[in-house]
Amino acid sequence: MKHLISTRDLSRAEAIQILDVAEEMREAGTREVKKLPALRGRTVVNLFFEDSTRTRISFEAAAKRLSADVINFSAKGSSVSKGESLKDTAQTLLAIGADAVVIRHPASGAPARLAATDWIDLPIVNAGDGMHEHPTQALLDAFTLRRQLALRENVSPLGRGLDGLKVAIVGDILHSRVARSNLWLLRTLGAEVTMVAPPTLLPVGSGNWPCTISYDLDSVLNAGVDAVMMLRVQGERMKAAYFPNPREYSRYWGLDDARLGRLNASGMDTLILHPGPMNRGLEISSAAADSDRALVLEQVTNGVAVRMASLYLLLSGDLTKESSL
Amino acid sequence: MKHLISTRDLSRAEAIQILDVAEEMREAGTREVKKLPALRGRTVVNLFFEDSTRTRISFEAAAKRLSADVINFSAKGSSVSKGESLKDTAQTLLAIGADAVVIRHPASGAPARLAATDWIDLPIVNAGDGMHEHPTQALLDAFTLRRQLALRENVSPLGRGLDGLKVAIVGDILHSRVARSNLWLLRTLGAEVTMVAPPTLLPVGSGNWPCTISYDLDSVLNAGVDAVMMLRVQGERMKAAYFPNPREYSRYWGLDDARLGRLNASGMDTLILHPGPMNRGLEISSAAADSDRALVLEQVTNGVAVRMASLYLLLSGDLTKESSL
Amino acid sequence: MKHLISTRDLSRAEAIQILDVAEEMREAGTREVKKLPALRGRTVVNLFFEDSTRTRISFEAAAKRLSADVINFSAKGSSVSKGESLKDTAQTLLAIGADAVVIRHPASGAPARLAATDWIDLPIVNAGDGMHEHPTQALLDAFTLRRQLALRENVSPLGRGLDGLKVAIVGDILHSRVARSNLWLLRTLGAEVTMVAPPTLLPVGSGNWPCTISYDLDSVLNAGVDAVMMLRVQGERMKAAYFPNPREYSRYWGLDDARLGRLNASGMDTLILHPGPMNRGLEISSAAADSDRALVLEQVTNGVAVRMASLYLLLSGDLTKESSL
Repeated sequence: MKHLISTRDLSRAEAIQILDVAEEMREAGTREVKKLPALRGRTVVNLFFEDSTRTRISFEAAAKRLSADVINFSAKGSSVSKGESLKDTAQTLLAIGADAVVIRHPASGAPARLAATDWIDLPIVNAGDGMHEHPTQALLDAFTLRRQLALRENVSPLGRGLDGLKVAIVGDILHSRVARSNLWLLRTLGAEVTMVAPPTLLPVGSGNWPCTISYDLDSVLNAGVDAVMMLRVQGERMKAAYFPNPREYSRYWGLDDARLGRLNASGMDTLILHPGPMNRGLEISSAAADSDRALVLEQVTNGVAVRMASLYLLLSGDLTKESSL
Repeated sequence: MKHLISTRDLSRAEAIQILDVAEEMREAGTREVKKLPALRGRTVVNLFFEDSTRTRISFEAAAKRLSADVINFSAKGSSVSKGESLKDTAQTLLAIGADAVVIRHPASGAPARLAATDWIDLPIVNAGDGMHEHPTQALLDAFTLRRQLALRENVSPLGRGLDGLKVAIVGDILHSRVARSNLWLLRTLGAEVTMVAPPTLLPVGSGNWPCTISYDLDSVLNAGVDAVMMLRVQGERMKAAYFPNPREYSRYWGLDDARLGRLNASGMDTLILHPGPMNRGLEISSAAADSDRALVLEQVTNGVAVRMASLYLLLSGDLTKESSL
Repeated sequence: MKHLISTRDLSRAEAIQILDVAEEMREAGTREVKKLPALRGRTVVNLFFEDSTRTRISFEAAAKRLSADVINFSAKGSSVSKGESLKDTAQTLLAIGADAVVIRHPASGAPARLAATDWIDLPIVNAGDGMHEHPTQALLDAFTLRRQLALRENVSPLGRGLDGLKVAIVGDILHSRVARSNLWLLRTLGAEVTMVAPPTLLPVGSGNWPCTISYDLDSVLNAGVDAVMMLRVQGERMKAAYFPNPREYSRYWGLDDARLGRLNASGMDTLILHPGPMNRGLEISSAAADSDRALVLEQVTNGVAVRMASLYLLLSGDLTKESSL
């Protein structure tokens, strides 16, 4: 593997290798001096055509912790707004000396296009493209689940998948690249996925996805799932009225206090994930977000580890090669 | 001390310790290679909810000179503008691996809130909050005065306070966190403070402050002060008409050429400070700003040293511990 | 030489020294670890009063590859927009500990003013000022041509000028600091320059420049030139109608497919340069931009090397001193 564009491209072995290397990276992150010399002298460019402080900072921290230099290229006020093509921008970054490009783009497929053409011969990491994919988010979600389950069973997470795990992804599936990336990766790792959403927030064609579709969050939770991923309601992406009003969304599709209470009463150990930033009180209540079930901050920490692993594996060559930190 | 939120919290011993460590830092800044390895592998996040290039750059230079990695988080275009709470933002930074957070916030008390809650277990440095405090500015002002007086008397500044020093703070006291932070610190270090302002630019309750209040700059200058701190007229903070017009402000409250001339004629060695950026011709004339009495650029240089000392002491643990660079 | 403000100030020996050091830097850039320790502990400030992501990134990459710390100071949202003077901003940067200032300014002459006054005692690099100069762009263009010709003749480029080379500069001469900087440097290095432009895009006084002026691109190309530099049409700088419409500009002044075809048919080995970002289809066709004659990406790569050489020579003291990396 030369690039990280879509979790759909990842074989089970590749995915598990990334997660295993990320375990090493996470370990390093607990030391007082968190820096590793692995990418000293290399330059990672964050090419962001969309604002995303969280994702940009996570990649920046990951690259710096590997001792790489980081150059942040925000498309605003740049040549891009002067009409430069993606091809010319990318080739310019290569010519300046970039060793890897992390790209965020509002257009679905832009990173894939960069990777598929012969424009530049650099590893490309997709940091989110339109409504398509956000592979490092899915990898960090899988990492977080795998690690949590291994802790619970007191075994090593290394080498394992997520076989038989039941995961519900809830909310705005239509606009969510996180949902798509998670679906492919969870399936590859052996998990079963249920998408839960109002019909207006499901894309055309989702009927053919390798998952169950449900319009009823309560029946899914009652049936029992190992983890529930609450998606962010992305007000900024919604140009039309997809649901009557926030209160109604919260009542039907939110992980509110009532549902949290029923989960607690049931004795089930369902874990709660959210990619952040959370709209507390909308798709998730504060009690749910702050409960012991919630892994939201674990996800953020693991995000740095997974991005370190991705950059490391892509820049030190072959993803299938044995890692040696 | 775990945080640096307010100069009001600092004991005399703590304040002097910061100033003493800053002396070491300033010394290191005169070498050709100014970098110290003290914070290698640590990450300092500049969390700025308000634009402030000067303060941000000073903290960035301070952290980099200690070999820390710096991540700049500007609230514009970030999750914050997508509705994330301060708590979630802060916990996200911790989860990403920040070792210290430097925060600038338009709301008075936001850094104190971060420090007081159990949201994050990281040292917090207040880089200015609303009309509350700007402690590193007060520390650099005190450092600059102490150093200048020690130079004049040809003694070491180490271990000393500012006992008996007479300082006038002049201008927009109402909106000035700099004035508040300076008041508490100057008092702790033994100085006497006079606040000089038009009545409209004094806050309710200032009558109870441990200082003299005056509405007449000339009588204060004539009576003799060791230093005069001219505050910036913050046009951007003034939503109402606090004084008739700039010319009148300058005539009554500015350190203009006439007042500079009288200072020079009097033979007094009153020092001039200004936190910058200056409105030349408004609160201070160019002749005053560029005179030998002015320490404005010394203040900027010392700002880096004081911020290095603060970050160093907070990150290497106990402020009361003996420093060993 | 203390500063790099204008190529007009450079003697032939100084220019060739910069190009020669840049050759060493370019060599270092081909290694896997591209970093050199030359400027460790030094701080380079990018003081940009105008957005220019490309130039800023190139300088940032150059400084980081020399192990310097980089602080980016964008004038937007800074003290500058609060009314601070250039003098105070510059002195503040010095006081913060900057070792060199790279400045981009919309006003012609701003960097020269910084360098000429006694405001700050730091090396100043002009990264583009108004319609005046952009010296590192001219240096990288000369570097690119010299290197390409040496490769063609299989000789070392070191120590050589561009004697006898025929160069055409085509397009919006009026607004182009690139054209001006190139003219002076190309002449100093011994090349002959023809400026090709519509009369409306030539400045008053260009008749006295040491170059030939032409209004007819075809006759210049037919007569034979070694290199043609296509200038960017800077829509954002044009407040009036300088040419009827884009199609007409392209037909008369663009390096379009027809002209490329005639170059190819003629058997001439004319090289094509463009400072980027390109308006493909306007001043240059995609076929021309992507042809073997085009050195556009070479220019970008060489830009980093030339900027490394400039920073290195300015910061390690005397430009006339022998370099020892």
